[in-house]
Amino acid sequence: MVSKKPEHWLLLERIVRFGETDAAGVVHFHNVLRWCHEAWEESLEGYGLNSSDVFPTGIQQVESLEIALPVVHCEADFRLPIKAGDHLEIILLPEKIDMTGFQVHAKFQRGKKNVAFGLIRHLAINARTRERCLLPEKIDLWIEASSLKLGPRPL
Amino acid sequence: MVSKKPEHWLLLERIVRFGETDAAGVVHFHNVLRWCHEAWEESLEGYGLNSSDVFPTGIQQVESLEIALPVVHCEADFRLPIKAGDHLEIILLPEKIDMTGFQVHAKFQRGKKNVAFGLIRHLAINARTRERCLLPEKIDLWIEASSLKLGPRPL
Amino acid sequence: MVSKKPEHWLLLERIVRFGETDAAGVVHFHNVLRWCHEAWEESLEGYGLNSSDVFPTGIQQVESLEIALPVVHCEADFRLPIKAGDHLEIILLPEKIDMTGFQVHAKFQRGKKNVAFGLIRHLAINARTRERCLLPEKIDLWIEASSLKLGPRPL
Amino acid sequence: MVSKKPEHWLLLERIVRFGETDAAGVVHFHNVLRWCHEAWEESLEGYGLNSSDVFPTGIQQVESLEIALPVVHCEADFRLPIKAGDHLEIILLPEKIDMTGFQVHAKFQRGKKNVAFGLIRHLAINARTRERCLLPEKIDLWIEASSLKLGPRPL
Repeated sequence: MVSKKPEHWLLLERIVRFGETDAAGVVHFHNVLRWCHEAWEESLEGYGLNSSDVFPTGIQQVESLEIALPVVHCEADFRLPIKAGDHLEIILLPEKIDMTGFQVHAKFQRGKKNVAFGLIRHLAINARTRERCLLPEKIDLWIEASSLKLGPRPL
Repeated sequence: MVSKKPEHWLLLERIVRFGETDAAGVVHFHNVLRWCHEAWEESLEGYGLNSSDVFPTGIQQVESLEIALPVVHCEADFRLPIKAGDHLEIILLPEKIDMTGFQVHAKFQRGKKNVAFGLIRHLAINARTRERCLLPEKIDLWIEASSLKLGPRPL
Repeated sequence: MVSKKPEHWLLLERIVRFGETDAAGVVHFHNVLRWCHEAWEESLEGYGLNSSDVFPTGIQQVESLEIALPVVHCEADFRLPIKAGDHLEIILLPEKIDMTGFQVHAKFQRGKKNVAFGLIRHLAINARTRERCLLPEKIDLWIEASSLKLGPRPL
Repeated sequence: MVSKKPEHWLLLERIVRFGETDAAGVVHFHNVLRWCHEAWEESLEGYGLNSSDVFPTGIQQVESLEIALPVVHCEADFRLPIKAGDHLEIILLPEKIDMTGFQVHAKFQRGKKNVAFGLIRHLAINARTRERCLLPEKIDLWIEASSLKLGPRPL
């Protein structure tokens, strides 16, 4: 689902799957927050980072990764019913909070209509001591690059 | 997972499962919002409602249920890492917003420590026209009963 | 994730997401079967079908769709650990069982190595009576087209 | 969801949740395999094991756990539609394959009717070298105890 064009790594898309709906016929709510996290992962890849630069990928990785980025807050708003087969555009807006934290806004559109909004806030901590620490440089660069290319805020 | 004692239908528990964790060794964030919704479903059952009174359970049901309760907002805060095998207590606090909406606060504790908080906001709509409507009477009764028995707000 | 080139609608790809792993650092097993179903959905779209031709997408749709395709069997084999960030190729092999059933084999490769295999078997039933019925014509066409283009079986 | 009575640690129950269904109004298939794994985890707890004896629960644990039990095969059969609110009984049948592997059969019943069957096969490997090794003694004891108490096979 990664947008292949580097200049588009804040604009992603996904097609809603049948298993993401519930018996009311629409997307079950918490999937939207999963999409937010996956869109963030895709954006990092589209920007040029490796998943293993940011996420522990198994025991060895967990040992070698010095900084963890736990989610400390998330929220979502739902505006219109989303159904299986819907083609969604996802517009990401990264935002640095301070030296040790950042959040990523996600806007979900079908056609040009907003169907949902999501937000995930991360904190940087030392993977061993679990004490707050500075954001990884690569995440800093991704956030800076996004603010440069965004121009007028899309949200 | 339903608490069998009627007087405890706002106090639930669950044990964290291995598949709910991620490669960082802790619960992957959005599962907490799934737990909030499932705890709400359990509370309704513990109070005496049938799932089919509130949730569409297949085509026929969808046709006969006049009122749908879509989620319009959700959020969660994460305070301490949660791991597989953790025994969590879930304290629910239902809150009526107006004649057509309500929200359910959830506090997750391990031992007596707060590990996470969740919130899900629902709107009542006509299942056919999707226009706002009054909350189903049974939901109203559940909310009233909860405010009576709660005494001092746990959150 | 849909392969945009029509000639490639049996060859899909996906990148493993962090939330699909567990505390052992590898993909939690049942996600592979979710991937199989999603790959099938993508293949139908890549072939030219609409999701709403095959899957109920809400109440109205459920009423109008005459044929349902419930899963009656699924299985998966796991050969190598799969981690977050892994780029997987998914090779689908649809197979008609009889006039009322079909199954879809999925082979997951990383590089040229097989990492997992999946299989999902569907039955066609009348959505109202739930009695066996003939496969929908569009599914028949997709299966036929796949056998034509596959040549030597990839599995 | 753990059955509190020790003598019942192979007989579990769960109530189907709304978010586990899809737009066809029934449980989305792969949830049944998640239930199988969770039922196995519950059974180990009901028998007296700690989750941390068997499952890695974070980095430290991953380092200290010598034996991993990856899933190498899983399958499920679906007999009757399962809906939100359904009360299911889960009957587990552990089976040792050889010194290094075992599988757990799960039978899901509603009332006394079989609605689904599941199977998960595990292999014991050294968590570092990933080479096959003997099953952990505690798993051996759980399997033996189950065969003793089962008497005539329920499946």
